[in-house]
Amino acid sequence: MISPFSGILDIQTSMNSNLATDASDRHLLGLKALQTDQLHVLLRRAQAFAAGATSPAALAGVAVCTLFFEPSTRTRLSFQLAAQRLGAHILNFDASTSSATKGETDLDTFRTIQAMGVRGFVVRHKVDGAVAALTAAAQPGVAVVNAGDGRSEHPTQGLLDMLTLRQAKGEDFSTLRVVIVGDVKHSRVARSDLHALRALGCGEIRVCGPASLLPDDGTLAGCTVTDDFDAALEGVDAAMMLRLQRERMVEGLVESLDDYHRDYGLTAERLRRAAPEAIVMHPGPMNRGVEITDEVADGPQSRILQQVSNGVAVRMAVLEAVLGAS
Amino acid sequence: MISPFSGILDIQTSMNSNLATDASDRHLLGLKALQTDQLHVLLRRAQAFAAGATSPAALAGVAVCTLFFEPSTRTRLSFQLAAQRLGAHILNFDASTSSATKGETDLDTFRTIQAMGVRGFVVRHKVDGAVAALTAAAQPGVAVVNAGDGRSEHPTQGLLDMLTLRQAKGEDFSTLRVVIVGDVKHSRVARSDLHALRALGCGEIRVCGPASLLPDDGTLAGCTVTDDFDAALEGVDAAMMLRLQRERMVEGLVESLDDYHRDYGLTAERLRRAAPEAIVMHPGPMNRGVEITDEVADGPQSRILQQVSNGVAVRMAVLEAVLGAS
Amino acid sequence: MISPFSGILDIQTSMNSNLATDASDRHLLGLKALQTDQLHVLLRRAQAFAAGATSPAALAGVAVCTLFFEPSTRTRLSFQLAAQRLGAHILNFDASTSSATKGETDLDTFRTIQAMGVRGFVVRHKVDGAVAALTAAAQPGVAVVNAGDGRSEHPTQGLLDMLTLRQAKGEDFSTLRVVIVGDVKHSRVARSDLHALRALGCGEIRVCGPASLLPDDGTLAGCTVTDDFDAALEGVDAAMMLRLQRERMVEGLVESLDDYHRDYGLTAERLRRAAPEAIVMHPGPMNRGVEITDEVADGPQSRILQQVSNGVAVRMAVLEAVLGAS
Repeated sequence: MISPFSGILDIQTSMNSNLATDASDRHLLGLKALQTDQLHVLLRRAQAFAAGATSPAALAGVAVCTLFFEPSTRTRLSFQLAAQRLGAHILNFDASTSSATKGETDLDTFRTIQAMGVRGFVVRHKVDGAVAALTAAAQPGVAVVNAGDGRSEHPTQGLLDMLTLRQAKGEDFSTLRVVIVGDVKHSRVARSDLHALRALGCGEIRVCGPASLLPDDGTLAGCTVTDDFDAALEGVDAAMMLRLQRERMVEGLVESLDDYHRDYGLTAERLRRAAPEAIVMHPGPMNRGVEITDEVADGPQSRILQQVSNGVAVRMAVLEAVLGAS
Repeated sequence: MISPFSGILDIQTSMNSNLATDASDRHLLGLKALQTDQLHVLLRRAQAFAAGATSPAALAGVAVCTLFFEPSTRTRLSFQLAAQRLGAHILNFDASTSSATKGETDLDTFRTIQAMGVRGFVVRHKVDGAVAALTAAAQPGVAVVNAGDGRSEHPTQGLLDMLTLRQAKGEDFSTLRVVIVGDVKHSRVARSDLHALRALGCGEIRVCGPASLLPDDGTLAGCTVTDDFDAALEGVDAAMMLRLQRERMVEGLVESLDDYHRDYGLTAERLRRAAPEAIVMHPGPMNRGVEITDEVADGPQSRILQQVSNGVAVRMAVLEAVLGAS
Repeated sequence: MISPFSGILDIQTSMNSNLATDASDRHLLGLKALQTDQLHVLLRRAQAFAAGATSPAALAGVAVCTLFFEPSTRTRLSFQLAAQRLGAHILNFDASTSSATKGETDLDTFRTIQAMGVRGFVVRHKVDGAVAALTAAAQPGVAVVNAGDGRSEHPTQGLLDMLTLRQAKGEDFSTLRVVIVGDVKHSRVARSDLHALRALGCGEIRVCGPASLLPDDGTLAGCTVTDDFDAALEGVDAAMMLRLQRERMVEGLVESLDDYHRDYGLTAERLRRAAPEAIVMHPGPMNRGVEITDEVADGPQSRILQQVSNGVAVRMAVLEAVLGAS
């Protein structure tokens, strides 16, 4: 296959825009800078993996390290499975535990593991742009995949969401109506989804949530924005629900879980406003009874577990693209 | 080999008795529902592994996840070694740490990892029957092995104990006299041992401990029960010592470690009451000086380290049986 | 290759000197007892690995366990990568977390994992000599590598330091002038370096640090000792900087980080006192701005990341030597 990453270094414009772009680098830092063609190449390869294709020697002997400065067992596990299926050696480094690095800078931690001969890094960090900043220290032949940075991007989640949409609705997104619901302001998932939906030509993107949880920085340009969930659901082909972090209450951005559920919880009754074949998505882990009811989460329109399955397929496609022979 | 699990779904009768039994499911939830023939098939295969048989490709490409809602490094390590020797990919998910699942239900955690394509689950949970409850969500082709649930069962420990007995005393248990000593009330090990000893036709099963640590719910039906340790040891072929959890003192069930040791600690002197070739067993980790002395633990009659070795062999047999080609 | 360990059991003389030496044992407990020839054999093999040699089946099917009673993610990761590249199965056991062993003795933990069939142990312990004490319980065919014990030895760090020196300065150390700087008193790295530098015939070994951080027990026999860092740097071919543990301030052994940096921090200006081609080393993790400045750490004379790379090569050589077919 033709690699979708030749010459691509996607740098968040909000930081580090002075990073040199090197044609030999292959990283996946975000979906913002990916071209539509590159997205299609990745999604087609992911679809092949989802359909059962294997490539057990693609990364034979290659060491891949999950380097998480913010803990996430689910995402780590998904990348780990993807890497194992491509024949890679997988190492886990949980840099979020204090003893791991003894006051060392994150950059020194990255450089140190790189010096050990690790060729692939799957990095999560709570600070926006931190993954790109580390990537600036990557040597030729070393690839970095962003597994979530701050509120900026979570590109493999965006890709798996697109794969899920595509499986349900076909490759042509031009007539699709999609609504993203909830705490978009703090969500890297939503930002990656927005970049991808735009690049794939989604017909209408609606964003719905309380004003306190919606960004006011241009993130939603071109979207239909509303705080009326019932209206936002009208006729949509897909509802992408976001997780409500409980700290939003501590911060005073949400009154209570009950209020949130009343206004923005997806119930079976509400879902009837959507198109008959509409699908429901959620990046997990779910707060059942808050942003989504059991009936919807476990119902026939839910694609939530399929998203998880697609996550492994997408990560196989990404790791193969950035680390495989090009 | 003929799989011992075709059509078997062992459900704890205390819960979830409405689980559907599906002939395509192969799980090991407990020893209670296993037939004597099935036990013998498993034990013979485990013995072959213990004697050096290998099967390095039995689970090639199969992903096995240790999913522990209660921490246990030893048991996890043993399963991990067993899975690796069968060629499986092994993943570890410590769901006992709070950040792992962010308030997600245990069932969602299980379903999520299953959706990633994991085919084998080794599950430990502190709640009785929780492993069986999760198993109800297993898809066709997915196998669950109970690595300990509450006080109910720890079937692979029961199997390794039987393998150890069999290696020392032969396949015919009909003339064996075995004593189980200690905190039977809170012990899933003891319950699995009791099920297996009965199924294998053990001649006499004695149970010994302070009344506060013995169950009064029918668990000991058919056993000779006593609080007199000296009497209980008389002429036995095997003494199966249980670990005394320190929380039993906090709960007021045991006066002190000293008192417990005086009444129920196995010393070399006491061991002389047993049959001359009697063996001593302990599931570990040991409280040396409490339920067992150094002299006995490290003495010629101890089979404690052999139990550990047998643990890997038994887990290879179980994983092969539930996950291998049938 | 000829194994450098046939018949070698390096026992710290400070403890357990009554351990039997068995010709079938192959362990690496320290550099103190290694012969010069053995060091050269190991270093040459490590150099081959550093230069790209592979041996992907050397330890095929062999289980290697990192057994850390004191946490260290970096060293664990380095051994893990080394073991994987030799085809071993790698298991990690973090015995520093309390739940791991439930009050079991360290010796029982070691024996238990050994009974599971693990053949290689990489052990770290905070107590001097503890690794050697555990090694006394190793069965024939089982090998132990000390990954750091107390203040005694960290032999693979010593070896990787020697490999780094050798790459920069050649095999003949007889005209080399080396300075070790900092908290030598509490440093197992420094002790292993000292043993190796002597065995390899280093021309002059200088040791520099505040009196409160220098040992007075004979460790420095034959070294030029001073508390004047400027003088100590004069004309050296290599400066081996040590990490300053922050607890030294709590203990009152160091006034402040600022004072320490003023007196013993390696700056670019100070480094000019060394020989023009002098190299700078540090075992990591670094306290930038304390024992070393950014300019030096990231400068052209720094070999700090090369040390990390060499660590994997050295550990491959060691694991192959103690566990491979002899």
